[in-house]
Amino acid sequence: MTALKFMRCSSRTCPTIRATIGVGWSRHASSNPRYDYDLVVLGGGSAGLACAKEAADCGARVLCLDFVKPTPVGTRWGIGGTCVNVGCIPKKLMHQASLLGEAVHEAVAYGWNVDDQNLRPDWRKLVRSVQNHIKSVNWVTRVDLRDKKVEYVNSLGAFLDSHTIEFLARPGSERRQVTSEHVVVAVGGRPRYPDIPGAVELGITSDDIFSYEREPGRTLVVGAGYVGLECACFLKGLGYEPTVMVRSIVLRGFDRQMSELLAAMMTERGVPFLGTTIPQSVERQADGRLLVRYRNTTTGTEGSDVFDTVLWAIGRRGLIEDLNLPAAGVEIRNDKIVVDATEATNVPHIFAVGDIIYGRPELTPVAILSGRLLARRLFAGATQLMDYADVATTVFTPLEYSCVGMSEETAIELRGADNIEVFHGYYKPTEFFIPQKSVRHCYLKAVAEISGDQKILGLHYIGPVAGEVIQGFAAALKSGLTVKTLLNTVGIHPTTAEEFTRLSITKRSGRDPTPASCCS
Amino acid sequence: MTALKFMRCSSRTCPTIRATIGVGWSRHASSNPRYDYDLVVLGGGSAGLACAKEAADCGARVLCLDFVKPTPVGTRWGIGGTCVNVGCIPKKLMHQASLLGEAVHEAVAYGWNVDDQNLRPDWRKLVRSVQNHIKSVNWVTRVDLRDKKVEYVNSLGAFLDSHTIEFLARPGSERRQVTSEHVVVAVGGRPRYPDIPGAVELGITSDDIFSYEREPGRTLVVGAGYVGLECACFLKGLGYEPTVMVRSIVLRGFDRQMSELLAAMMTERGVPFLGTTIPQSVERQADGRLLVRYRNTTTGTEGSDVFDTVLWAIGRRGLIEDLNLPAAGVEIRNDKIVVDATEATNVPHIFAVGDIIYGRPELTPVAILSGRLLARRLFAGATQLMDYADVATTVFTPLEYSCVGMSEETAIELRGADNIEVFHGYYKPTEFFIPQKSVRHCYLKAVAEISGDQKILGLHYIGPVAGEVIQGFAAALKSGLTVKTLLNTVGIHPTTAEEFTRLSITKRSGRDPTPASCCS
Repeated sequence: MTALKFMRCSSRTCPTIRATIGVGWSRHASSNPRYDYDLVVLGGGSAGLACAKEAADCGARVLCLDFVKPTPVGTRWGIGGTCVNVGCIPKKLMHQASLLGEAVHEAVAYGWNVDDQNLRPDWRKLVRSVQNHIKSVNWVTRVDLRDKKVEYVNSLGAFLDSHTIEFLARPGSERRQVTSEHVVVAVGGRPRYPDIPGAVELGITSDDIFSYEREPGRTLVVGAGYVGLECACFLKGLGYEPTVMVRSIVLRGFDRQMSELLAAMMTERGVPFLGTTIPQSVERQADGRLLVRYRNTTTGTEGSDVFDTVLWAIGRRGLIEDLNLPAAGVEIRNDKIVVDATEATNVPHIFAVGDIIYGRPELTPVAILSGRLLARRLFAGATQLMDYADVATTVFTPLEYSCVGMSEETAIELRGADNIEVFHGYYKPTEFFIPQKSVRHCYLKAVAEISGDQKILGLHYIGPVAGEVIQGFAAALKSGLTVKTLLNTVGIHPTTAEEFTRLSITKRSGRDPTPASCCS
Repeated sequence: MTALKFMRCSSRTCPTIRATIGVGWSRHASSNPRYDYDLVVLGGGSAGLACAKEAADCGARVLCLDFVKPTPVGTRWGIGGTCVNVGCIPKKLMHQASLLGEAVHEAVAYGWNVDDQNLRPDWRKLVRSVQNHIKSVNWVTRVDLRDKKVEYVNSLGAFLDSHTIEFLARPGSERRQVTSEHVVVAVGGRPRYPDIPGAVELGITSDDIFSYEREPGRTLVVGAGYVGLECACFLKGLGYEPTVMVRSIVLRGFDRQMSELLAAMMTERGVPFLGTTIPQSVERQADGRLLVRYRNTTTGTEGSDVFDTVLWAIGRRGLIEDLNLPAAGVEIRNDKIVVDATEATNVPHIFAVGDIIYGRPELTPVAILSGRLLARRLFAGATQLMDYADVATTVFTPLEYSCVGMSEETAIELRGADNIEVFHGYYKPTEFFIPQKSVRHCYLKAVAEISGDQKILGLHYIGPVAGEVIQGFAAALKSGLTVKTLLNTVGIHPTTAEEFTRLSITKRSGRDPTPASCCS
């Protein structure tokens, strides 16, 4: 255990932890002395950290291993995983930067004496600010682990057998082995690259863009999942010229009508889409720019264009390759790990949480809650399982899209078109009038059962601050929200969220869902 | 009926309506031919219009009378009532203008090349923009009434007897009389003035501020209800110097802890409060500015200060004085009308909705929904009553405050301190880090039953876009939300609304409600 000193010794602020160096703290009542640890967590992202901290809170002896392999262009980052370093947090900050550019124009419309004619962002300043915030979160995370008495080693762990993990205790040192009664795999995923010439050498991904040194300029975003759309939108908002290349459809897995509306909103804002198109190669030109050749799979037409940056957003793969899972006998599917409702793998004392799980939503709060619940079941006698139903999510485009529950297609598929009623409406946010912002894509709908009190199956909203709007409705859905209750809920005026309480027009009626009156 | 032509004739777009001039449209099945109308609505604000339009939709013959008496300084406005003209709508637009000024500074922090050193609003441009929007809503409202076949006369109606209303059909014309089977009183309220020298002649109210020709400058806001705080805050945000004079407590009727936190937020932002102080007189000085004398009721100290504008926000009174209610025998209390659960007054065919009702929340969506439900009960055989419980509301200060359900005090009073559990937490909005905005007052709490699944009695939130955050939770409360369900709801990351799903610290535990980690 002495090899772990290097990390613990750095804790100058916590004498309790320093005093326990090399001996471990008092053992958890149910600890099995055969093992060095009660729990080893592989991966220090949202899922792994939440699980590790909760387990330590429950008195377990916990070791957390985390290591980030640099990207092909050399980007690296600290503890905290995708969300903090190369996901939600920097994405939301870039999104906010983009919205603030729009806000400057709006401020002028409202009468502020600002010159918005030559509005430009300072990309490097923005990246620096974003990275500084990330570093501070990394720091807080480290301190939090120490406070909670979770041992942490910045190293890549791999199975030697189902109870034994091997890792480097520090760079260049000999490999160490520890045993643990339980192991939780929470290594997450990383962006995929297409298998075409130039992709890895010349392209970047969301792992790189938030710390990218130079301005992205004219950018080809390949992929129209939420990552691709979000990146394209904040780049557009920052004044760069993104183009989105779509293989088949935008936002696969989301409600089709809402997805198409979101794409139309982006088009209106000047983000072009290259539909049914796949990339074929990337080459660096003499002037340093990138020549991308592509093919339209519908027409068969080939084409090419020149970009400053090519960003791959074609999906993510699970990071199983370095885990030596066969040594532990853990079952995988594709590059993910198969688990049951208790997050257990086929090996009963090995679990997986977060993005590495096969077939579950890849979302930070899902990862956190499932990690925490797992720890409580393992070390505090809890029985509550993670409920993966009706998980709300948000796409952070300039008009955001948020939803909870079923898409219209899923509801029709599962319940039959005759058994569902869809309430919908366009609306006009009060604040949009003065700056004359387009309200064309401000739309919401409720997918409900047609009979009885009309239990709501799904809610969908495109507009400002969509995540803030939908969160409470997600709690309402979990509480059994019906259309009857929704329309009996008094609105908060003037908000956009109140539009849900005014949803009186059904698709079936064929009535015009465009609003007429305001405030009566 | 020919006297009504002047209004109907102006409808060039609707031949149906023009064809019916003087004869009325086909009678509603249950119409009583003894009366000219099935329904006369007194007041064309949110409540009256919603009721009138819904009644007409149900086939009733409806007349709506609306007239706005100018304020002491001569402000007047069109159809739509307080919300559209001198309430929610202009208030939200001024609030938005104020937030956009803040956004310009934030944009600089995020790297935009804007000069925010001498940021100033153009008050007249803002007022013009706000008024233009209001005029457009007035216009849409008129068109909507015509489309829905509601007769509208811009006149003050008064009772001659319980079925007869008298009014001027047009300015300067003879008084007209019409009879109606039902009458709905929806005349709303207007701001009060204090009974001190100079108050009426030299002060203004929220009825005036949104169309005020000159810059407000240094402003004394008298009153610390939500109207006073909102006005003070948007004035501060626009760069003027408001002072708030408080007779007793801020936000009477709201949760005390949240109200004090909101006041602390305002103080931090440079809005001074004159506590336990009442105004004594207002005089115009030789330089045109206003000398206000006041007295601290705790210390007895007298003082005075000079302001450019004095704004009274000391409460509102019901507009019963011109209705001649005694002629109809309608019972009043103070300046409001007493109604039962069906919104009926003591005279069974006379009803009241909106702000004129005694003892109910004075909120636009309450007015709209109660007016609509009343019309359905009167003319469409509906039975649903307005549910005044758990109505959410929002105070639009720069960090907004929104709540639904019980305050902590009310819960303790009704259930006993031993039977409630309060979950609470401070939080740090992701977007606040880069511009280093104060997070000191970002706070939320849930007031719940202590036993079982812990049914939630009240939710309270101070932070960005509070109304958008709370609306869905209001629907959740109506659906029986419990703490168990709330903590089992997966958050949307990164939002501020998700903090409700992370509320794990009870006040009773004494644990520090300040957040440590992020994203794990």
